[in-house]
Amino acid sequence: MKNFTSVKDVKDPGGLVKRALEIKTNPFTPDFARGKRAGLIFLNPSLRTRLSSQVAVQNLGAEAIVLDIGKDGWALEFEDGVKMNGNKAEHIKEAAGVMGQYFDVLGVRTFPELKDRNTDYSEQLLNAFIRYSGLPVVSLESATRHPLQSLADWMTIEENWKKSERPKVVITWAPHVKALPQAVPNSFVEWMREAPVDLTITHPEGYELAEEFAGGVPVEYDQMKALEGADFVYVKNWSSYKQYGQILSQDESWSFGNEQLAVTNNAKVMHCLPVRRGLVIKDEILDGPNAIHLQQAKNRVYSAQAVFAELFTSSNSSL
Amino acid sequence: MKNFTSVKDVKDPGGLVKRALEIKTNPFTPDFARGKRAGLIFLNPSLRTRLSSQVAVQNLGAEAIVLDIGKDGWALEFEDGVKMNGNKAEHIKEAAGVMGQYFDVLGVRTFPELKDRNTDYSEQLLNAFIRYSGLPVVSLESATRHPLQSLADWMTIEENWKKSERPKVVITWAPHVKALPQAVPNSFVEWMREAPVDLTITHPEGYELAEEFAGGVPVEYDQMKALEGADFVYVKNWSSYKQYGQILSQDESWSFGNEQLAVTNNAKVMHCLPVRRGLVIKDEILDGPNAIHLQQAKNRVYSAQAVFAELFTSSNSSL
Amino acid sequence: MKNFTSVKDVKDPGGLVKRALEIKTNPFTPDFARGKRAGLIFLNPSLRTRLSSQVAVQNLGAEAIVLDIGKDGWALEFEDGVKMNGNKAEHIKEAAGVMGQYFDVLGVRTFPELKDRNTDYSEQLLNAFIRYSGLPVVSLESATRHPLQSLADWMTIEENWKKSERPKVVITWAPHVKALPQAVPNSFVEWMREAPVDLTITHPEGYELAEEFAGGVPVEYDQMKALEGADFVYVKNWSSYKQYGQILSQDESWSFGNEQLAVTNNAKVMHCLPVRRGLVIKDEILDGPNAIHLQQAKNRVYSAQAVFAELFTSSNSSL
Repeated sequence: MKNFTSVKDVKDPGGLVKRALEIKTNPFTPDFARGKRAGLIFLNPSLRTRLSSQVAVQNLGAEAIVLDIGKDGWALEFEDGVKMNGNKAEHIKEAAGVMGQYFDVLGVRTFPELKDRNTDYSEQLLNAFIRYSGLPVVSLESATRHPLQSLADWMTIEENWKKSERPKVVITWAPHVKALPQAVPNSFVEWMREAPVDLTITHPEGYELAEEFAGGVPVEYDQMKALEGADFVYVKNWSSYKQYGQILSQDESWSFGNEQLAVTNNAKVMHCLPVRRGLVIKDEILDGPNAIHLQQAKNRVYSAQAVFAELFTSSNSSL
Repeated sequence: MKNFTSVKDVKDPGGLVKRALEIKTNPFTPDFARGKRAGLIFLNPSLRTRLSSQVAVQNLGAEAIVLDIGKDGWALEFEDGVKMNGNKAEHIKEAAGVMGQYFDVLGVRTFPELKDRNTDYSEQLLNAFIRYSGLPVVSLESATRHPLQSLADWMTIEENWKKSERPKVVITWAPHVKALPQAVPNSFVEWMREAPVDLTITHPEGYELAEEFAGGVPVEYDQMKALEGADFVYVKNWSSYKQYGQILSQDESWSFGNEQLAVTNNAKVMHCLPVRRGLVIKDEILDGPNAIHLQQAKNRVYSAQAVFAELFTSSNSSL
Repeated sequence: MKNFTSVKDVKDPGGLVKRALEIKTNPFTPDFARGKRAGLIFLNPSLRTRLSSQVAVQNLGAEAIVLDIGKDGWALEFEDGVKMNGNKAEHIKEAAGVMGQYFDVLGVRTFPELKDRNTDYSEQLLNAFIRYSGLPVVSLESATRHPLQSLADWMTIEENWKKSERPKVVITWAPHVKALPQAVPNSFVEWMREAPVDLTITHPEGYELAEEFAGGVPVEYDQMKALEGADFVYVKNWSSYKQYGQILSQDESWSFGNEQLAVTNNAKVMHCLPVRRGLVIKDEILDGPNAIHLQQAKNRVYSAQAVFAELFTSSNSSL
């Protein structure tokens, strides 16, 4: 694995899940990456990802340096060949180039603008960090994917499923007041296709995910029908990919509550957090025994740790 | 000690002072809490508390992760049972719950709004972190108390008093341009009542502290009379508790200067900082030999270290 | 060396360069300053300086605590004897005094306001931190100097020059859209005068640097003539010292490109970063083989490490 931005970067995703679960049994290994250093660059604010990445890097004995790049504080130019006479103080070539001098691995968090689909889906920012830093790069969520989350999700499913047959996993859209990225559902679908599960996607019409992620995965527009017999339900809002970045529905009948749970196979209910209580998922679920969202959050440390361990080892810098 | 939010959380406050003074003689013990991790959560900005807590945790060999929660960056919902369709992105149940997965001990800094007394004095925010994180919680100042400061204050008095009789300690109100919390005087009084000192409170009428803190402690409205023969004077502004959050006086005759010092027993003069020079305390005092405010500040490291040491040891997480 | 704010603080600047180059060959020495602590105080935002200083301190085994002091977050009073009844919450005497209790060495970053020359050139802020912290202070760039940059620049020249004769070094002004400090050119000139190089300064008329920095160094107003036969060219914008803080020219014929390079002795081209591409230096240079700006950036770690190593050793605090 050279970078970690998508399931496609990983030769053996199931093996990586196993490795992360092993790490969970004994996470504190301060001699593993002693003297190594990770830069964690946030172009958007973050709670869980920042904390879990920092903890993961420190568990490995390496140093994590967090950089919160506010919108005002540090305007970066990403275009090639421009005369920089506006408000952008530094080009990504130099910014990432300098980070390449200081770190062994780079974690980068970017967000889509949800204005132009081609721009977002080209992953311009993430790719620029990869290209110009010369370092192994870990996506701490990008415009179109959130692979550390998906790896933690897979771990959590593995921990909660002890049968030999494949579990039925359903990812369901839920209403929200803001237009959110497709990164989490894209990634979840992308990873679940590599996992030993039967996956169904359910959402109102118009919320179809991009073909490159969801192509071939069954879509059921009737939420209740989709949820029937589900062993795991991933609840998540996203904005439309087709009418890019738009909110097409705020139908609260899609809020996940006991009514939905009743038709499942006593499903475990998942969410990547932050979750809007009462809107996306009802309190009766989040405060009940089926919710495993905090377990997912805990596993974020070990999914990150497995990935950083791999990339620290493969980087060229001398220990 | 399960949490550290008030003197009431401590079985033997005098013993904790002794422990902190011992730590001061040899503070760097990097194997003490190796592999442990403290989250230091600031809902309000802080200089001394942030630095001293971070240094304390690092002196113990543990890792400190500081989270500055700006007002805009991360709006938390604290109410139960609401449908979160406004501007609050996450509920304290999940935010604190996640921190409970990542840390061994949590330090939390909150401030009162000084609008509604019942809200502030219920310590809603601090108690929510305790309840939902499931971790031992250290108050890094809350709406109504600042116990790490008081512990450092007690240490400082102990270091400056070698006689066998009880010193006379006076806490005096002083003028300020802003409405400040009662947290520092509340806490100082609460701790001094457990200490071997004779305590007097002095302030203009209307500035009486809450009964639960100051009940039974002598109040003298004539500052000069109160200060007579004092061995230690704690100078501090606070806003009114009775007319909650109001500034009732800006009487600069209460500013602490040489005139006040003259009637004391060559008292040591204390302040928790930050201090408005010329307004709260005059330069002639702060730049003179009686001021021990920097000693108090230094002792913040060791008071925090004694508390974190205790809570790291009692937490369940495996080292 | 007691502080590091100017080349004048260093007894043997050439020896310090050698020491930094030695450190570069083996930078990770975690037992060197174990238990020591550096405070890195930024009154202005910073990327390279923050990262390189933090990495340097950590390479020495010490702990670095970064404090970003925003304009709003923490307003400091620097005047003596004022009654603090405005918006300044703390006096530098206490702020720096407290840091003196918590750290072994202090790094401080300040910027000029470019309004009043005497204020800026008095280095009021930096000197106040030195005076009131009682600690060895490292300038992380001040109103008039950037010595860690100049030390890294000298290292970079040393690495790129293997001949016995003195190289010709030219520092050339370049256009910019904003009024920038004179700190980098002041410092570069101040250090190069101690180095075994032949230095020439070139800029449009009106951009003369202060006599205390540039007095006696040849100035050539014709850029092309100045660059003839140069072995190293340092490109940098600065605002006028004479008409203080003003932009007197935006003449883009001074932008450094292949046309300028052609008259040099195949010069290495330097910049301290951030650099405005296409305006200060053209892409053809920055993307070509003569640019050594990333090498300069890398050397920032080792220049800082040499300085912090020296000051940790000379500080009084017990290890």
